[in-house]
Amino acid sequence: MSYSKIIKQSFQVSFNFNLIFTSKIFKVDNHILLDLISNHSTIKSKAIVVVDNGVSKAHPQLKESIINYFKQYNNAIQLNGPILEIPGGEQSKNNEHYIKLILEKVNNFNIDRHSYIIAIGGGAVLDMVGFAAAIAHRGVRLIRIPTTVLSQNDSGIGVKNGINYFGKKNFVGSFAVPYAVINDDSFLSTLDERDWRSGISEALKVSLIKDYNFFQWIENHIKALNSRDKNVMNELIYRCADLHMKHIQNSGDAFEQGSSRPLDFGHWAAHKLEQLSNYEIRHGEAVAIGIALDSTYSHLKGYLSKPELIRILDCIINLGFNISYNQMTDEIIKGLEEFREHLGGKLTIMLLKSLGTGFEVHQMDENLVLASIGYMNEFSSEKITL
Amino acid sequence: MSYSKIIKQSFQVSFNFNLIFTSKIFKVDNHILLDLISNHSTIKSKAIVVVDNGVSKAHPQLKESIINYFKQYNNAIQLNGPILEIPGGEQSKNNEHYIKLILEKVNNFNIDRHSYIIAIGGGAVLDMVGFAAAIAHRGVRLIRIPTTVLSQNDSGIGVKNGINYFGKKNFVGSFAVPYAVINDDSFLSTLDERDWRSGISEALKVSLIKDYNFFQWIENHIKALNSRDKNVMNELIYRCADLHMKHIQNSGDAFEQGSSRPLDFGHWAAHKLEQLSNYEIRHGEAVAIGIALDSTYSHLKGYLSKPELIRILDCIINLGFNISYNQMTDEIIKGLEEFREHLGGKLTIMLLKSLGTGFEVHQMDENLVLASIGYMNEFSSEKITL
Repeated sequence: MSYSKIIKQSFQVSFNFNLIFTSKIFKVDNHILLDLISNHSTIKSKAIVVVDNGVSKAHPQLKESIINYFKQYNNAIQLNGPILEIPGGEQSKNNEHYIKLILEKVNNFNIDRHSYIIAIGGGAVLDMVGFAAAIAHRGVRLIRIPTTVLSQNDSGIGVKNGINYFGKKNFVGSFAVPYAVINDDSFLSTLDERDWRSGISEALKVSLIKDYNFFQWIENHIKALNSRDKNVMNELIYRCADLHMKHIQNSGDAFEQGSSRPLDFGHWAAHKLEQLSNYEIRHGEAVAIGIALDSTYSHLKGYLSKPELIRILDCIINLGFNISYNQMTDEIIKGLEEFREHLGGKLTIMLLKSLGTGFEVHQMDENLVLASIGYMNEFSSEKITL
Repeated sequence: MSYSKIIKQSFQVSFNFNLIFTSKIFKVDNHILLDLISNHSTIKSKAIVVVDNGVSKAHPQLKESIINYFKQYNNAIQLNGPILEIPGGEQSKNNEHYIKLILEKVNNFNIDRHSYIIAIGGGAVLDMVGFAAAIAHRGVRLIRIPTTVLSQNDSGIGVKNGINYFGKKNFVGSFAVPYAVINDDSFLSTLDERDWRSGISEALKVSLIKDYNFFQWIENHIKALNSRDKNVMNELIYRCADLHMKHIQNSGDAFEQGSSRPLDFGHWAAHKLEQLSNYEIRHGEAVAIGIALDSTYSHLKGYLSKPELIRILDCIINLGFNISYNQMTDEIIKGLEEFREHLGGKLTIMLLKSLGTGFEVHQMDENLVLASIGYMNEFSSEKITL
C-alpha cells in the first residue's frame, strides 16, 4: 500500500437564529433590537449599520430614527460611525467596491467578531453586506432587516450570500448563518407594484413543491394580494418563510454539498432569463415564468394533469405576472447547463407530479422545453384554457 | 409586546474529511489522489493545481510529475490549465492579487463545486488558496497538500483560511472544511533548518495543554529531532495533528463562535512578535517564545511549579529556539488587546497548571507579563536553572 496512516476528521456544527416579525423596529419603545444585541454586561455592544439607499429614500426618517434609537439606549448599545448607504438592487453586487467599503468600516470602527453589522435593504444589498460580514474576521455577527417581500420570505432568511463576478451571478460568496433576521412589515408599504408582487412567486414556488394547502390559500387570496392587503401579505410571508426555513432545517444539506436544490424549482430558467433581459426582469418575475415553464414541462411530459397545470398558470397570470416574454428564445436552453455548472455534479431539476408535490429529474428534453414555451405563449395570448 | 411572531431556525451541518499520511503522492503507482478525486463514473473529475514556488524550486521535478500523474489516469481525472505558481510565505497573503488569479482559473477552466483545487505549499499559501476555494461558487472542493512541519501538524489540517488586509493578519477569511488533506513526508527533506524546527513548537504547545505523555516524548526525542530523523518527525506530526483534530472534533465550537481558543496557547504574544519583527521571526519561532512567556507567567502567578517551568524552557532552548529577542519590549503588551479584538468578546488566555494541563483566565497582570520577559531573558542568558 502507498499510505501508512489516516486520521478521520468528523464533526458537526450547530447553527441557530431567530426570524422575528415586527413593525417599526427602530421606534424607541420597540425593544427587539436592544434585547437582541445588548450583551447584558458593562461592555457596550458595538454595531455598524448599512442601508439600501432605495429604502432610505422611501423612508426619509429612517436614518434619524436609527441614530435616535442607539442614542436612547447608549448605556448598552453603540452605533459606530455614520450609517453607510449603498445603492440598491443588483448593482450593489456587481462591484467589489462596496465589499471593501464595509471591510474598511469594520476596521476603522473596531467591529470584532462579537460586534454587529446591521443590514437593511432588499435581497441584493443583504447578499452583498452578508458576504462582507462573513469574511471580515472570518465572520462578524450579521443582523438582516429585509425590506422587500422577496427578501422577507426567501433570500433574506436563508444561509447564503454572494456577489457577482466575471458577469456571473453569485460567482463569489459563502454559506453563512445570520445572527438574526428581523422582518419589519412597515417597509412593505412603500414598495412599488412590481416589488410587492415579485416576492409572491417564491411563495407560489414553495407551495407547489411542498404544501397544497398553502397553494389553495394563495389561490383564494389573489384579490387581497393584488389590492395590497397587508395582513394577507404578512401571512403569505410567514408561511413561505416557515416552509423555506423548515426545508433548510430538515434537508440534511443546509450548505448544499450535494446536487439537489428543491428550493430552486423554476430557477434554472429564471436565472437565465434575468441575464438575457439584462436584469430588466426582476428575480421574482423571472421565477414566476420559470415556475410556469417547469409546470408546463411537467404536464407535457405526462407528470402533471392538465387541470392542475391550468390552475397554476391561471394563478400566476391572475397575480399579475406575465408568462410570455420576447427573451424566451432558444437561448433559454443554455440555462440548463449553466445551472448544472453552478451547482456542480449532475443536472438536478425539480418538477411537479401534483400540486404540492415536487420530484427530481436528472435530464431535460430540450425540444419539450421549447414546446412548453410555445404552450405558455399560446395560453397567455389566448387567455383561454386550451 | 412589540412583536407578533418568531420562527426559530436550528440545524446542524456535518463535516468530514480524511488526513492521509503518505510519501511521494504524485508517483504514478501511488493511487491515493486518484482514488480521492475520481468520481467512478463516465464523467472525468476536473482539477486545477496551485503550487508554492518555494516548493517547486526545492523539487524541480514536481510540476512534471503532477502533469504526468494526470496524464497517466486521464480516463478518470483531468488537470485543467497550467499549474499556477504562487510566491511562498506571508507575501502570498498580503495581496488579493493571488485570490483573483485563482478565481480567474476557476472561471476559465470551468471548475464547479464538485471539481477540485489542489494546493501544495506552506501554511501561508494554503491559507490563501483555501480562501479563494471557499468563496468561488460558495465553495469548491479543496485538497491541501501541506509541505512544512508547521502546515502538516497545525495550520494545514484545520478549518480556517485567510488573507491579510489593512496590514492585519487574517483580517479577511472564513471557516471552511477541506475535502481532504495529504501529508506527504517527501516534502520535509528539503526544508531549511528554521522551517524544520519551526513547526515543532505547535507540537510542544498542544502537548503542554493536553498531553503530558506527548511532552515527555518530545523531551526524549530532542536529539533525534535536531538531527532531522524523519521517522521521529513523522511521529511528532502524527501525534500533534491527531490532538489538534480531536480538539476541533470535541470542542463543540469548531467554527469559534465563542471566545475560547485553547489551541492558541502562547499565540497572543506570538502574533504581536511576528508583527513587531516585520515577520522576520517565523510563526513557529514566535510561538516557541509565546509558550515560554505564558509558561513563565503561569509560574510567576503561582499556577505552575518551578521544576515544571524549567523543563519547558530547557526543552524549548534545547530544540534550538531562542526565547530572548530584542523585539520583546513593552510593545508586546498591546498583543493582549489585539488578540481580544480579533476573537471578539472577552479576553480569554490559556495558561498552564501543570505539564499537560491548560486552563483559561480572562485577565492578565501586565507587570507580571513584563516580569516574565525579564525572567526569560535572565534564564536564557545565564543558561542555568535559576
